[in-house]
Amino acid sequence: MKTIRIVIAGPRGRMGREAVSLVQKTDHFQLVGVIDRKNDGGDLADVEGFSGIHAPIYTDAARCFEEVKPDVLIDLTTPEAGKKHAEIALHCGVRPVVGTTGFTDEDIKRLTALAEEKEIGAIIAPNFAVGAVLMMKFAQMAAKYFPDVEIIELHHDQKLDAPSGTALKTAQLISAVRPSKKQGHPDEKETLAGARGATYDGIPIHSVRLPGLVAHQEVIFGGNGQSLTIRHDSFHRGSFMSGVKLSVETVMHLHTLVYGLEHIIE
Amino acid sequence: MKTIRIVIAGPRGRMGREAVSLVQKTDHFQLVGVIDRKNDGGDLADVEGFSGIHAPIYTDAARCFEEVKPDVLIDLTTPEAGKKHAEIALHCGVRPVVGTTGFTDEDIKRLTALAEEKEIGAIIAPNFAVGAVLMMKFAQMAAKYFPDVEIIELHHDQKLDAPSGTALKTAQLISAVRPSKKQGHPDEKETLAGARGATYDGIPIHSVRLPGLVAHQEVIFGGNGQSLTIRHDSFHRGSFMSGVKLSVETVMHLHTLVYGLEHIIE
Amino acid sequence: MKTIRIVIAGPRGRMGREAVSLVQKTDHFQLVGVIDRKNDGGDLADVEGFSGIHAPIYTDAARCFEEVKPDVLIDLTTPEAGKKHAEIALHCGVRPVVGTTGFTDEDIKRLTALAEEKEIGAIIAPNFAVGAVLMMKFAQMAAKYFPDVEIIELHHDQKLDAPSGTALKTAQLISAVRPSKKQGHPDEKETLAGARGATYDGIPIHSVRLPGLVAHQEVIFGGNGQSLTIRHDSFHRGSFMSGVKLSVETVMHLHTLVYGLEHIIE
Amino acid sequence: MKTIRIVIAGPRGRMGREAVSLVQKTDHFQLVGVIDRKNDGGDLADVEGFSGIHAPIYTDAARCFEEVKPDVLIDLTTPEAGKKHAEIALHCGVRPVVGTTGFTDEDIKRLTALAEEKEIGAIIAPNFAVGAVLMMKFAQMAAKYFPDVEIIELHHDQKLDAPSGTALKTAQLISAVRPSKKQGHPDEKETLAGARGATYDGIPIHSVRLPGLVAHQEVIFGGNGQSLTIRHDSFHRGSFMSGVKLSVETVMHLHTLVYGLEHIIE
Repeated sequence: MKTIRIVIAGPRGRMGREAVSLVQKTDHFQLVGVIDRKNDGGDLADVEGFSGIHAPIYTDAARCFEEVKPDVLIDLTTPEAGKKHAEIALHCGVRPVVGTTGFTDEDIKRLTALAEEKEIGAIIAPNFAVGAVLMMKFAQMAAKYFPDVEIIELHHDQKLDAPSGTALKTAQLISAVRPSKKQGHPDEKETLAGARGATYDGIPIHSVRLPGLVAHQEVIFGGNGQSLTIRHDSFHRGSFMSGVKLSVETVMHLHTLVYGLEHIIE
Repeated sequence: MKTIRIVIAGPRGRMGREAVSLVQKTDHFQLVGVIDRKNDGGDLADVEGFSGIHAPIYTDAARCFEEVKPDVLIDLTTPEAGKKHAEIALHCGVRPVVGTTGFTDEDIKRLTALAEEKEIGAIIAPNFAVGAVLMMKFAQMAAKYFPDVEIIELHHDQKLDAPSGTALKTAQLISAVRPSKKQGHPDEKETLAGARGATYDGIPIHSVRLPGLVAHQEVIFGGNGQSLTIRHDSFHRGSFMSGVKLSVETVMHLHTLVYGLEHIIE
Repeated sequence: MKTIRIVIAGPRGRMGREAVSLVQKTDHFQLVGVIDRKNDGGDLADVEGFSGIHAPIYTDAARCFEEVKPDVLIDLTTPEAGKKHAEIALHCGVRPVVGTTGFTDEDIKRLTALAEEKEIGAIIAPNFAVGAVLMMKFAQMAAKYFPDVEIIELHHDQKLDAPSGTALKTAQLISAVRPSKKQGHPDEKETLAGARGATYDGIPIHSVRLPGLVAHQEVIFGGNGQSLTIRHDSFHRGSFMSGVKLSVETVMHLHTLVYGLEHIIE
Repeated sequence: MKTIRIVIAGPRGRMGREAVSLVQKTDHFQLVGVIDRKNDGGDLADVEGFSGIHAPIYTDAARCFEEVKPDVLIDLTTPEAGKKHAEIALHCGVRPVVGTTGFTDEDIKRLTALAEEKEIGAIIAPNFAVGAVLMMKFAQMAAKYFPDVEIIELHHDQKLDAPSGTALKTAQLISAVRPSKKQGHPDEKETLAGARGATYDGIPIHSVRLPGLVAHQEVIFGGNGQSLTIRHDSFHRGSFMSGVKLSVETVMHLHTLVYGLEHIIE
């Protein structure tokens, strides 16, 4: 396989470190530079935690792209910086793979036009865990045959909001393909308020929060003497790297921008 | 093993039929009579669904006990009838095994006195599924070491009340052994009401209702990099027969009344 | 929805009874006749277990089709009879939905030609549980992204063969889309023989047999800090009726024969 | 609660670091010294990864105990060193909590005599994950009522041996309380060798190995229309610290040596 030359923006963040490690252990990936607010002009190998991993550090994205001529930019910084880097990358003919949220429809439109003008690919994905994206896709497919469904999501007890973003996204995807309906018995009643969970367009969502857990979700479909369950367990943030790897490989063959990993998964 | 002579009250009910089948296939159990509102003086073998299973039918419990002299009465009728039959049985020196709810503290006290006077055993149990009783027992034991716990119960969508009686009973048992506490993050908030479920003394309970399901419950404990899950699945009403069998065998060695299967399980 | 006129072959079998019940409770389905070896010329309502369900009984399939002019034949008999009935149905312009195995490639080819000549649909499916078919489909899709996978199937302990046909079919489908590989650590070793299960083209399969269980299967994919699990639980044979219903509705719009439910599920 | 003065042996190891962190965040625990082969006479705060955590470093265990007079020694070193440290601790009147395997019956006997002579507690435990110990205990209890059981253990694919030590220990505990039996149908047969798993005294054990997984085990009991499942998930090594904490608190009240966490869990 042809080697893909990669620049990583945000190498010192938690996700960034995982990305550096991913590039290191993938044979046909090569780290040719990093973009960082600190240590401009230095060598990544001199930064704590990266000993032996040589790559020039740039604070200026445009200069980085011009000098090291990468194929792909992996950006795991902030929504703010990610947006800026993606735009500069496309201008310089570098394919961006960006893992942050916060892009507006306007942003997506502008960057798509730019990608198509340059005839290169770009991938922006709020969720890079391939397993989670597959779970959502399968849930949507199953809902056509099993309109009765409930979602249980389980997270560590430091999570503040309930339900999780992934649970809501899953319910939205299901809701888009099944006729709106009220589930459960028409006369069912809660003897303790909240027992039947939250409801999104008739789909009950239950949020479990316990110390020790990481990030888990179960989508349960029931009907006619059977049930079908799709479950994703994310044990550590490395789970995002499966999608980063897939995106880097895929972006090389695209000639437009794709928003959301679900559109590159068949 | 010595053969145990058994009378079944309510043989034509759904549970009663399972009990007849249990007695038939257990080597050391012998069906010596049945108590039924209908067919007094007839033979069970002539009733639809019981061909080949011979046993005299009595409408009058006292006469039944006097004539066939059973060791044990299995009563799977109504709370009303169950109470009456248990009392007559004890008076006649027959050990009652009763699977109905609806006994008051007063009833239990009176029947206990009667059992001890006659020096024979009696077992009254609202839930005969040994697996469910073990689940509750284990949940109570685990709560001492893992105070953070949530309960998910899943039933077919014809069930009207949520949460289930078993879920509530489980929460009560846990609540009895752990200090009262608020679980989850102090600042957690529901962006969709009900997401965090119902709460019993700080323990979240989530009720899933889907067609196809039968009766299931999961108790999940979390703490320090781990989780412990105890799950019971009841696939059909035969699950109750495990407890009926255990009770019949145990009641032969008791000299008092025991209320609740959990007290004969170690 | 337009009413679909249905004939059921094999109404007195376990599956046949479920099919009669399905047709009864589906608004746009109408039972217009049954094919049975017994009771030729009688009324189904006079047969034990069908009181109130009127439909003429025929022993001769051709005469049945000519007289009641059904849209669809649901056949849940034997491979032998199913094959014969399907052929007669097509000749008479009736769309067959057949739930038996045992069709040879030759049979399928001949019946397909016949269906296309008559320009009507036909569906033959060895497994009518929609949930199981979706599980297999999803497993095949996931394998492209997660090449490491194991299958656990769990059945009641009266099942003689291990692994189950569904587990093998699942492994075959996965094997067709992923490069052959050896899973697990190259140096792994069993200290007790059999611990790592059976292997189909590198995919471990584990068969659990326990009393109380019905029919369950879990396909577990692992990779990069995450796992994805697809599970199907079949609680009773009603689970097959989901696929019969879908097939009856779908066969009305086909103009050829489809073999396998997976080809009508998107 | 009275503060417990603690010395940790092996602070720089993976488990040792978790133990230091445990002591830091537990209000009534106080780190008064560490035993380490390196940095004798130094301050732990000067060692990489421990900044701000002050404690004198000793290479000589006896001198450590004499100078800092701890209540408890937590030893997470090697079997070799653990054995030596435990003996010295008891001689110095310090209660050892040791988390290594490799103690012979002879060792246990000698250290028990020493603990009783000194009238202080000691705890040696090969497995400190409280959840895993509870799982094994519950499995043993359940086996009395459900003699049919199978074990599924799931680990990351870097694990070399199958089945896991915990699975074997679980099978041994179950085997000790149920009559030996052959499970499954007498005529069952494997059409692919290994499908029914490994067998320990009639108990099937299935080992799953997949990338992404950590350490998980499920014990499934089946009988009479129901199943009971006990599952432990260990998501990271912090799970061991639940048992270290419990042991430190319990060892203060003992006057003998306890081998195995299961004996201090009720």
